[in-house]
Amino acid sequence: MESWRDRGEAKRLSILNSIPEKWRLVDPVPPATELRDVTGSYIQQFLTPREIEITETDAAGIAAHTCTGDWSAVEVTEAFCHRAALAHQLVSCLHETFFDAAIEDAKEYDAYFAKHKAPIGPLHGLPVSLKDQFHIKGVETTMGYVGWINTFQGQQGDPRYKTEESELVRELRALGAVLYCKTSVPCTLMTPETINNIIGYTWNPKNRHLSCGGSSGGEGALIALRGSPAGFGTDIGGSVRIPAGFNSLYGLRPSAGRIPYEKAANSMDGQSTILSVIGPIAPTVRSLELLFKVVLSQEPWLHDPLAVEMPWRDEVVETTKALIEGARNGSSKLAFGLMKYDGSGRIDPPIARGLKIVEQTLQRLGHTVIEWTPPSHDTAIELADKAYQLDGGVDLKHHFSLSGESQPSQVIVPENGTELKASEIAAVNVAKREYQKQYMDYWNSTSTLTGTGRPVDAFFCPLAPHAAAKPMQYDYIGYTPFVNVLDYTSMAIPVTFADKRVDVRPADHAGDSDYIQWDCKFPSLKGRSFGLQANQLGVDDAEIYDGAPVAVQMVGRRFHEEKILTLAEHLGGEIAREAYIFGK
Amino acid sequence: MESWRDRGEAKRLSILNSIPEKWRLVDPVPPATELRDVTGSYIQQFLTPREIEITETDAAGIAAHTCTGDWSAVEVTEAFCHRAALAHQLVSCLHETFFDAAIEDAKEYDAYFAKHKAPIGPLHGLPVSLKDQFHIKGVETTMGYVGWINTFQGQQGDPRYKTEESELVRELRALGAVLYCKTSVPCTLMTPETINNIIGYTWNPKNRHLSCGGSSGGEGALIALRGSPAGFGTDIGGSVRIPAGFNSLYGLRPSAGRIPYEKAANSMDGQSTILSVIGPIAPTVRSLELLFKVVLSQEPWLHDPLAVEMPWRDEVVETTKALIEGARNGSSKLAFGLMKYDGSGRIDPPIARGLKIVEQTLQRLGHTVIEWTPPSHDTAIELADKAYQLDGGVDLKHHFSLSGESQPSQVIVPENGTELKASEIAAVNVAKREYQKQYMDYWNSTSTLTGTGRPVDAFFCPLAPHAAAKPMQYDYIGYTPFVNVLDYTSMAIPVTFADKRVDVRPADHAGDSDYIQWDCKFPSLKGRSFGLQANQLGVDDAEIYDGAPVAVQMVGRRFHEEKILTLAEHLGGEIAREAYIFGK
Repeated sequence: MESWRDRGEAKRLSILNSIPEKWRLVDPVPPATELRDVTGSYIQQFLTPREIEITETDAAGIAAHTCTGDWSAVEVTEAFCHRAALAHQLVSCLHETFFDAAIEDAKEYDAYFAKHKAPIGPLHGLPVSLKDQFHIKGVETTMGYVGWINTFQGQQGDPRYKTEESELVRELRALGAVLYCKTSVPCTLMTPETINNIIGYTWNPKNRHLSCGGSSGGEGALIALRGSPAGFGTDIGGSVRIPAGFNSLYGLRPSAGRIPYEKAANSMDGQSTILSVIGPIAPTVRSLELLFKVVLSQEPWLHDPLAVEMPWRDEVVETTKALIEGARNGSSKLAFGLMKYDGSGRIDPPIARGLKIVEQTLQRLGHTVIEWTPPSHDTAIELADKAYQLDGGVDLKHHFSLSGESQPSQVIVPENGTELKASEIAAVNVAKREYQKQYMDYWNSTSTLTGTGRPVDAFFCPLAPHAAAKPMQYDYIGYTPFVNVLDYTSMAIPVTFADKRVDVRPADHAGDSDYIQWDCKFPSLKGRSFGLQANQLGVDDAEIYDGAPVAVQMVGRRFHEEKILTLAEHLGGEIAREAYIFGK
Repeated sequence: MESWRDRGEAKRLSILNSIPEKWRLVDPVPPATELRDVTGSYIQQFLTPREIEITETDAAGIAAHTCTGDWSAVEVTEAFCHRAALAHQLVSCLHETFFDAAIEDAKEYDAYFAKHKAPIGPLHGLPVSLKDQFHIKGVETTMGYVGWINTFQGQQGDPRYKTEESELVRELRALGAVLYCKTSVPCTLMTPETINNIIGYTWNPKNRHLSCGGSSGGEGALIALRGSPAGFGTDIGGSVRIPAGFNSLYGLRPSAGRIPYEKAANSMDGQSTILSVIGPIAPTVRSLELLFKVVLSQEPWLHDPLAVEMPWRDEVVETTKALIEGARNGSSKLAFGLMKYDGSGRIDPPIARGLKIVEQTLQRLGHTVIEWTPPSHDTAIELADKAYQLDGGVDLKHHFSLSGESQPSQVIVPENGTELKASEIAAVNVAKREYQKQYMDYWNSTSTLTGTGRPVDAFFCPLAPHAAAKPMQYDYIGYTPFVNVLDYTSMAIPVTFADKRVDVRPADHAGDSDYIQWDCKFPSLKGRSFGLQANQLGVDDAEIYDGAPVAVQMVGRRFHEEKILTLAEHLGGEIAREAYIFGK
């Protein structure tokens, strides 16, 4: 019998071999020490001007072209297949390609348009990438497990192998989207880096010393390279937001129940204390909005028992726009909370600068900014950690055992934990609800501080303590899972890039281990030797992070997706402008 | 130390003693063998004509009077306090009375109205009864446990004792409602009869040989006697619908997340596979609608983490009314499913007649009726049974152990079950989701059968196999928990009353044990000697049930409360009319 290493390697080669000869790189890619950033001009050298034009248009822009028949679905699809193939060869971000099937679909869409003079749907001919949790007919799903190769979620001989389609896939097809690739994930999904025993490690295209983030890391890396205009990831502790932020993209973590998860593969399926949710990632807010809105138009609540009957609410958009307009003309204000530090995860200089840029943006626009001092996020982190470990690792262990492969050390669920009993889980659920209630009451209480008569409209906080993480050195994961505990809407917002000229630690902190050692709140990570050594830091650290994307997150109340999208559309460009001015 | 019997008895007496002398019955109430029905003229004899006028007006009607200053809050409150006091003496339906506090509140409301010439809110001066799970300042919550007497949910010295208020209580007060009593429940809440070691057994006011249902049994009995115009119960397996139906009332089991459960006491709190939900019970649909709608106006999602941001949707009401109007003028139709038998729980003659009345009503109104043949309800019942027993009875056992009291044999959770582990619970959750998906797909598929272009608008099925149950003889509980598994909207709809002249078993079935022995689907009930003996049935059975309310349930999709309320408002009166005609 083949070893798991051989099986993983064979699958890795089959992914590479699925790339047409004409799109393969001939010369080796320079190492990261020589070439840090493979986005922009580096990847462009392999593309035609027309391919660059198409692939550097955002999803909303492409849909506008394809839905009017201005651009053909085939031309758009081929351009993205080509660029995705290149992206994979640069940073190892794909698990599956099915370019031929995609081009066939695109041909059918073009024929439909030629016949009906109308698009199939609002995503007519738009390529959309998917994290390798979604089932697509004719395509394998490994979710990064060697033991899932040639099986349906690890079950050999299951008739659903390569025949199942996830509900979201069905809806995307109905909307006219073209599916063409599935992107890399860490096996287990339970780590914010992307590594598995098939494709190895997915690197950050802006800075190949660093991680692309995870668990929707392949999505982040692929879209950063514009090998996809937009895609869908999943988020149970930050897995949409982290790779979005680490790749200078927007990523939305909606509340559970809005985007259908039905028939997608998952880890620890049936764990209901914190639900994993699906969210879109894209370079522009309007593209996120497009994807989110059109999925809701498919009425997922009629096809997914966990989806909530909550259509896209234009009235929320209108109310929010009126507040924004009021802030412009001085008749009203928006109010935001700002939390620069959660009391546990000390932030790096680039992140501190990113938050400063956000604060200045909000102030320049005339919005109120109050300090966000909620119930301790430590409580949320403890709850999240418990939720992720309810089964003591039984599920993950089973899937590793299918092939005998080793568990990457970054996985935050220990291999041999203790499985909780019903009454213990109930106690976790009660504690979670009590924390949610405290947080909700705190949010309500800010109405006395904002001067708007309302509580804050949203709040900003770090997404991670650092710009895109160094491999094996994502020590403090506390800035994202509190959102999952609360089931709030949250969006990763790109702000700027780490800059070694300005993002140096204050001299009085250089080498100060108290400053650089995170208080690791994940018991499963405690005691690991992930922490940086003091002598590795200082100027060297600024050097390594140089060029890495800096992001923050904007957090809204539960089910406030329409509001957060509208606010992000308003603020995203202003933040970028501020970063440009501030960086001078 | 006092025995648990003494403590329960002391509490029982204190409830009786809380009734003002002037409202106590002097003569003993005749036994059920002499006087079956204590509603109507029997209870009226103790009331003034004005008290009868007030208490026999429905909640919506009362609110119309009190909100305009036409009726004073004090007069209305006193009338209901009086009638509730009588009701308790007749059928033992109260756990707490706080009439003095209620009258004080009513005085304040009257003063407010006098000053502002406007009501405090849409429930200004309306008495509302609450199941003894809700916390009210100054009032104890025992939930039927002897061990909870003088404690907060069994915890001695907890500062929340008599100081906590449930979120729904806060909202009802804000709306202007008057709270004046809490109603009886079975300890554990996990049985459809109402019995505990404090108040004993709550009898059915229409037929005191029978149960008032449960677990919101005190609500059902009290409202049947018009000791309350409307109240709130909870439902995890039928506990709103069963007592509503057994008392000829309407009762709504909404989907989880609409009415706030925050800070209400519960059994097995934190069990999240099937959530208990709160729902209103009242003699008229419009009263249910009033209560449901005004609670939503309080935006519970800002105060309860489990509440969903879904305001009352007038547009659903309008769409539904347009369909009803279309059916009247022949331009459109409504379509209903009808399931007379779930394949496991054989129904009694009165229920068969009730379903026939519903079918004829729908046909007379020109609606389409199709046979409802969903995925087997046996699967749902097995899932529900697992969900109720996740913790193997740990929670219930703890609460019984506080006093050492005995567990009533009707409780469907065994005392010494096996507690499930996280991975086992996850498997239950996945199986539940798969069943929900199958059911959803079945519902969607009926669009090909209805002739309306839509799937069925709702479906009807039995609420229980019998009219109000004989004590200890509620053998088959399968007709209600499938709704909780699916999280669908469901309403108990009163149809008619058991009539010994017509509701006799067909001659060829008399004494047929196959016909009369239910297939008990609750493993926890299997093997018990609850089943009727063949020789006890036949004519005797018709005699015992004579006069008992017959109800069915109307089931809608998840979150379809507005639609079900609108349909019930349309159909309720028509069904009653049909019953009147059909009964001749």
